[in-house]
Amino acid sequence: MEKQDQLLMKKQNKNLVLEIIKQQSPISRMEIAKVTGMSPTTITRIVSELQEQGFVKETELVTSGVGRRATLLDVCGEVIYTIGVELDRLIIKIGIVNYIGEIVAWKSVPREEYEMYGETLDKVTKNVNQLISLYNIPMEKILGLAVGIPGLIDYKNGIVDVSDQLKWKKVNLVKDLSKRMGFEVMIDNELKMKIVAEKFTGKAKDSQNAVLMGIGSGVGSAIILNGEIYRGETNNAGEIGHTIIDPTGNVCSCGKIGCLATYISEGAIVADARKVKAIGRVEEVFDSYRNNESWAINIMDRTSTYIALAVSNILCLYNPEVIILSGNTIQKFPEIKEAIEKKCDLYMWEPIKEKVKIVYSELSDRGVVLGAAIQAQNTLFYLD
Amino acid sequence: MEKQDQLLMKKQNKNLVLEIIKQQSPISRMEIAKVTGMSPTTITRIVSELQEQGFVKETELVTSGVGRRATLLDVCGEVIYTIGVELDRLIIKIGIVNYIGEIVAWKSVPREEYEMYGETLDKVTKNVNQLISLYNIPMEKILGLAVGIPGLIDYKNGIVDVSDQLKWKKVNLVKDLSKRMGFEVMIDNELKMKIVAEKFTGKAKDSQNAVLMGIGSGVGSAIILNGEIYRGETNNAGEIGHTIIDPTGNVCSCGKIGCLATYISEGAIVADARKVKAIGRVEEVFDSYRNNESWAINIMDRTSTYIALAVSNILCLYNPEVIILSGNTIQKFPEIKEAIEKKCDLYMWEPIKEKVKIVYSELSDRGVVLGAAIQAQNTLFYLD
Repeated sequence: MEKQDQLLMKKQNKNLVLEIIKQQSPISRMEIAKVTGMSPTTITRIVSELQEQGFVKETELVTSGVGRRATLLDVCGEVIYTIGVELDRLIIKIGIVNYIGEIVAWKSVPREEYEMYGETLDKVTKNVNQLISLYNIPMEKILGLAVGIPGLIDYKNGIVDVSDQLKWKKVNLVKDLSKRMGFEVMIDNELKMKIVAEKFTGKAKDSQNAVLMGIGSGVGSAIILNGEIYRGETNNAGEIGHTIIDPTGNVCSCGKIGCLATYISEGAIVADARKVKAIGRVEEVFDSYRNNESWAINIMDRTSTYIALAVSNILCLYNPEVIILSGNTIQKFPEIKEAIEKKCDLYMWEPIKEKVKIVYSELSDRGVVLGAAIQAQNTLFYLD
Repeated sequence: MEKQDQLLMKKQNKNLVLEIIKQQSPISRMEIAKVTGMSPTTITRIVSELQEQGFVKETELVTSGVGRRATLLDVCGEVIYTIGVELDRLIIKIGIVNYIGEIVAWKSVPREEYEMYGETLDKVTKNVNQLISLYNIPMEKILGLAVGIPGLIDYKNGIVDVSDQLKWKKVNLVKDLSKRMGFEVMIDNELKMKIVAEKFTGKAKDSQNAVLMGIGSGVGSAIILNGEIYRGETNNAGEIGHTIIDPTGNVCSCGKIGCLATYISEGAIVADARKVKAIGRVEEVFDSYRNNESWAINIMDRTSTYIALAVSNILCLYNPEVIILSGNTIQKFPEIKEAIEKKCDLYMWEPIKEKVKIVYSELSDRGVVLGAAIQAQNTLFYLD
């Protein structure tokens, strides 16, 4: 509860009208009045203000059933922008996203495995600036930049607590990147950014309760609850990779025994494969599977088993409407889907299993960048 | 976002002032004005209304530092009541709770293992009514009644989907109990009710992110996230008893293999004990432990191991500030606490383990009833 005054009310109404136009466009002034319960006069005044500020435009005339003609309204995409960045072990991806969530500019550049912290930051700065001028994005329209990073992220203080992939520990990324950039910077865990994109345009679009599981070099998850990111006390909720799934199982690099990640991460798959054959990358295991080599079939069979066990546990603990599977392993080895589904059907708890959908992310390699940009807009945009 | 109008504003301000007096009493009008940013005149008007309606009373005069005297305000406990009920396999507990959360009347009656549904409802009705007249609670001051039940509860529609303990399946409890009672009835899972009490007055009082784990005849958990109950899509979030903790482990009655409950529930402990000795109840296992019988020490050692594994997984998945352990096993066998703590220290994930507190519920056998009554007040009380 907070004290309400008239000025605040006016602001809220204006933001509400803009949000409705954005979500239900094309829409007429009359319909907005109906939806909000505000008077047509108020709506006309607010819409004029929004037009002057460049957020709203008139589109077309339509004839409604009873013969009256109404002008429809739409939002303008090019009125503000946010920038999304994904930092991963060997790649940096950058996207500029407009007000309606379109990626209007895109670039990816390689990152070296042992690149210094400052070097990566300079690379990000240089390439973001290049992208901005290449696409003639006016600086004053850029609200800010958000970065998605694998690891434990203290998003409130802008600090990367630890990222094994980037080999960073306790770096003040927001401070260091803000200094180089001219605008606001925010950071968060990559999967938390990605599920924002899934909520905006992907498999969680119509869901208030969704879990995204990432299976690749790392294993993790992110949760949307009542439409918001579920963070927990220190932003680390969803660390399913280090839940114990077999107390007499594999030793994990974290020092515990039987962590889920030790059965399904790329590193785990490769390490097991090397007991049989001298292979370099996880893709070679997938190739061996396709060549009908029994050891590879065994390893990938076990992988699908443990993924299904994890899905079963996610269902019991978070009770989501939808579980979205994503990550390199799913993308590069789609054969695993059928096995996962069959095993999920066996392993999921009977009384609630009919109520959940298991689906696969379709945002491919742009999910984190898009989600970061959307999150920046959600956080930084409020019309005064 | 919703359309704000002045009437709504007035209501919100009034409820805000009452809430502040309730939480920060004794408090002066001046302080309320300071906290809310409302004018002293407005506060005086609102407080008068609240006094007339019986919610607020003046308590004492205090002399503040600069020599001015202020009258302090407090809320009245006896202005409204809610009733909390706990239904369990062999017992029915009833409590009447006043506006400030005091249990002013209490009663518990036995329930038969194979008691019919209607019989239990009649018993609840009869005993609630007896308690109301015994304590002279005015009917018009009773807002409603809430019931906490073990099992899967569709709290929105007031239906018990399934309760193994009560042997109920798809019963419309809210409808059937409302018919017998004169006031509003609501229901929810017992652990969800209990964590409301922990939030109100127990170990989650100062926490926005807490998990309560219940270990007894059943095994489950309830989650408070950002101060609210985390429900998931169909109110079943927290079903940790059926998460798989060992894929090659015990067969569970649910049809899966390796569910947590098969290692730590009372039934599981008793079933394992019977492989060694003819025992009747779980308390006999605890006695054998105290008699230094090695089989009992082995079984309880394994129990503490699996409880600690579950706590470790709770930490990774929900990232709470506090994990509260509760239930019969913890209450009747407090020796287990030390073992759980030692093992938690070993099993919990290093990067985040310093940030969580493992504690034990102190609400004993009144937690569910109190939580249900508080939840009824939270849901049904809003000052017009």
